[in-house]
Amino acid sequence: MTADLSRLSLNTATTKALTLQEAVDAAVRAGLPAVGLWRDRVAEAGLEESARIVREAGLRVSSLCRGGFLTAADADGQRAALEDNRAAIREAATLGTRELIMVVGGLPAASQPGGPALPDGDRDLVAARQRVADRIGELVPYAAEHDVRLVLEPLHPIFAADRAVLSTLEQCLEMAAPFPAETVGVVVDTYHVWWDPTLETQIARAGREGRLASYQVCDWILPLASDALLSRGYMGDGYIDFPTITRWVAAAGYTGDVEVEIFNQDIWDRPGDEIVSTIAERYARLVQPHL
Amino acid sequence: MTADLSRLSLNTATTKALTLQEAVDAAVRAGLPAVGLWRDRVAEAGLEESARIVREAGLRVSSLCRGGFLTAADADGQRAALEDNRAAIREAATLGTRELIMVVGGLPAASQPGGPALPDGDRDLVAARQRVADRIGELVPYAAEHDVRLVLEPLHPIFAADRAVLSTLEQCLEMAAPFPAETVGVVVDTYHVWWDPTLETQIARAGREGRLASYQVCDWILPLASDALLSRGYMGDGYIDFPTITRWVAAAGYTGDVEVEIFNQDIWDRPGDEIVSTIAERYARLVQPHL
Repeated sequence: MTADLSRLSLNTATTKALTLQEAVDAAVRAGLPAVGLWRDRVAEAGLEESARIVREAGLRVSSLCRGGFLTAADADGQRAALEDNRAAIREAATLGTRELIMVVGGLPAASQPGGPALPDGDRDLVAARQRVADRIGELVPYAAEHDVRLVLEPLHPIFAADRAVLSTLEQCLEMAAPFPAETVGVVVDTYHVWWDPTLETQIARAGREGRLASYQVCDWILPLASDALLSRGYMGDGYIDFPTITRWVAAAGYTGDVEVEIFNQDIWDRPGDEIVSTIAERYARLVQPHL
Repeated sequence: MTADLSRLSLNTATTKALTLQEAVDAAVRAGLPAVGLWRDRVAEAGLEESARIVREAGLRVSSLCRGGFLTAADADGQRAALEDNRAAIREAATLGTRELIMVVGGLPAASQPGGPALPDGDRDLVAARQRVADRIGELVPYAAEHDVRLVLEPLHPIFAADRAVLSTLEQCLEMAAPFPAETVGVVVDTYHVWWDPTLETQIARAGREGRLASYQVCDWILPLASDALLSRGYMGDGYIDFPTITRWVAAAGYTGDVEVEIFNQDIWDRPGDEIVSTIAERYARLVQPHL
């Protein structure tokens, strides 16, 4: 029996060493119907050329990563963030996806992602979260005009200081609540939310509210990599209960693609076709039967 | 003006290189009124001798660390856990503290704390959490008999796989709800909960329900140490907004001691008196004024 890969999407972050064209070719060879794109790969290939590559390969674009970094406290930082996010919205529309994943940024006190806190830096987490809500509100009309959805991503609390002050699905849904579901959604990335005691409830709520925009899978592995950002593994190599979480996502009515997005240097060092066939095998075993 | 240290407690984990007697002496020299004890230090010195050392120094014992590791799925593992926790309850009573901090343990799939997942290991997080609730229920009568409180500790989600399946204050309060507040409480450790979007609400609830049993402070620093467990810093060296969280704790009616519990190899390598004077200085600057 052939595995049913009809909803499996390769996120280009999983095959970091490949160009967009190479990643698309690997996806096609493995029988995948979709890719999730990162803006860096798109920028390398050029926006129009990227759209052409994907279209001619006959693939769907399940999402574009990423907008966000909206926590700046100063006017210049806020202007720059809005400009960059408007560009991301246009890119999503051109690439043919409605779903723009938003990684919202960390505290102003962060010297750099993964870096130490600035001694006199701004550590006001409550205020940083409010600024994200404010910036989302400012971006909503532009996103709606371009028929693109701002997809709020809760990041694992390990990243709350330096990468994303949105930490739980509930918090994202609360932030999305004032806006139409077609314009502000949420993503469930197992790596970030698997530990959440309210996960089942909030996934069901996201489905009910029509905001479940993307389902991304990869595993939580230990020991952590020296760069914690790269501590992701193939499904089955870590601690996450994929059958259970996938059943919750299915029960919430999600019918979209399932993206595999893995940051892991050891995986990046392997040949692209091996990576894609491994994710296909793990998906077919641990995820697809529960969709 | 002398700093007001009348609620500052030295957790012996902060001065890991010191014996119990040495840690107590350092606390006394710095003018601290209390210590939080770890069972390893107590076992080294002997239980009765430990009680004598602290009593003769005129110090309070703000808490005993730790009971827990209650997630075993097999009968032998469960029996051993109950036995160990009953011993911890007796030790707390002998040492003169009501507050026994409970680190509840990770998934059966964990090969060891910080280690990789067992390929065929049990990853059912929902069931592991239910077993914790069941074991707590079994321990409650024994704790009440000894006038000791089981203090549920939410650990940062970075530890959900391998050290504690309790991840949020809300989850701990839900688990505590069926039991009397004098017998099952919760601890707020800034390191573990600082990122939680519902923190203010849940601290207020813990106070209202009479379950706020301990307030522990240390900072979230980046980059993470190679052993993530040791990535804690002095207050002020990381990303946590101590004034805000401390005001929430004060507003919840907490009047107990504030323990400083830092796991950090660089700090452990320093002389004990330097460590204690540093925590006193940081406490006086960032915490005490907001209590």
